[in-house]
Amino acid sequence: MFDIIAFDADDTLWHNESLYTATQAKFAALLALYVDGADVERQLYATESRNIAYFGYGIKSFALSMIETAIALTEGRVTSADIEQIIAFAKEMIDTPTQLLDGVAEVVAQVAASHKLMLITKGDLLDQERKLERSGLSDYFDHIEIVSEKTEATYRALLKHYAIAPERFLMVGNSLKSDVLPILALGGHAVHVPYHTTWVHEQVNPTSVQQAQYVTLAHISELPGLIEQIDDTTTKNQQI
Amino acid sequence: MFDIIAFDADDTLWHNESLYTATQAKFAALLALYVDGADVERQLYATESRNIAYFGYGIKSFALSMIETAIALTEGRVTSADIEQIIAFAKEMIDTPTQLLDGVAEVVAQVAASHKLMLITKGDLLDQERKLERSGLSDYFDHIEIVSEKTEATYRALLKHYAIAPERFLMVGNSLKSDVLPILALGGHAVHVPYHTTWVHEQVNPTSVQQAQYVTLAHISELPGLIEQIDDTTTKNQQI
Repeated sequence: MFDIIAFDADDTLWHNESLYTATQAKFAALLALYVDGADVERQLYATESRNIAYFGYGIKSFALSMIETAIALTEGRVTSADIEQIIAFAKEMIDTPTQLLDGVAEVVAQVAASHKLMLITKGDLLDQERKLERSGLSDYFDHIEIVSEKTEATYRALLKHYAIAPERFLMVGNSLKSDVLPILALGGHAVHVPYHTTWVHEQVNPTSVQQAQYVTLAHISELPGLIEQIDDTTTKNQQI
Repeated sequence: MFDIIAFDADDTLWHNESLYTATQAKFAALLALYVDGADVERQLYATESRNIAYFGYGIKSFALSMIETAIALTEGRVTSADIEQIIAFAKEMIDTPTQLLDGVAEVVAQVAASHKLMLITKGDLLDQERKLERSGLSDYFDHIEIVSEKTEATYRALLKHYAIAPERFLMVGNSLKSDVLPILALGGHAVHVPYHTTWVHEQVNPTSVQQAQYVTLAHISELPGLIEQIDDTTTKNQQI
């Protein structure tokens, strides 16, 4: 049924958003020394949103946005020592070991035994390469694509590059916006495996028509069973 | 003779190092208000070198290194307004139009008429994509590869991915370290087209044995003639 099963990486295979959330809490604690009760989260997100066009996604972009936000929120009073601290936060994030989500190692190995796998992840090139290397999953993937955005155009170009028919392509990911909806729009298949937290930038409200076109799994460990079921159904339909 | 002719991008197709040099001069002028006669260039390079393992190449990495250097050199006295100014420098760099090197537009069009072209560039994903889009050259390239480092291993993986024999691969670039020597080590062909300035990180001293294995062109406009000459020689040898 599927020529390629593609996985998103951040928050699908390994923890990512939780690392940003934890850093954001440290950042808010640091700013609490200057300003009382500021809505650090909202301000930081506003800066990040403005900066995506310049800096894209990833830890370096996040660090630059934290610095800008710190200067703005403290009206310039933030000390250079605290700005150094923010850069240190970024380096700590980069140094954090890649922590696989529960069940991922087994699921990826199992699915790789019967299908070609692709990894499609957006963000900073070096950072994503480093996480993949540390994940121990690298060898399971036939193709690895690190892209700057995951739009319909991105996926169309990838399917063309690898000469894959959309109907024989399955994408698995935690983001409706980046992993599911663009694939459905191209006539491909998608499985949604929500992560416990979603960055506000990735939040969308799918229509009921869209919702009818993808499967949501409570846990990635349900994926091999789902794929087997689809394969069986397809084989039966072909026999009839 | 060649299945693929690959081009480096920064300082081979378009100006890049000169943009960093110009920003570094603005940065030094800013720090001159705090410290007299500091060797800003050397200090910044030391910070950048330390940070490459964390942040890789590109403008965001450069911005974070400038901020760290400013704090260190001024012993913390740099104001947050000046740190904001450094981030503004980075955004200005990102906003700078892609400026092709003299003759590049014609040469790429000419070589693309007879050969498949690939672009292999290292650096920040979003930044490189943006420069390529703005360059107007995008359509000439059959394959575009943005990588985090250009080592022998990087090129070996690319040649394997595209099933290209090294002896049928020609790489054109300004960096001996990144564009020429790793290709020679793999048994491929390389043409060196020096840029007027080379970042110290990219400087190497090739051996005389290595020097005998690649051609250095004074100007990229000599490339089509060189390729034609190689093709002719190969055809003649095959006829004999």
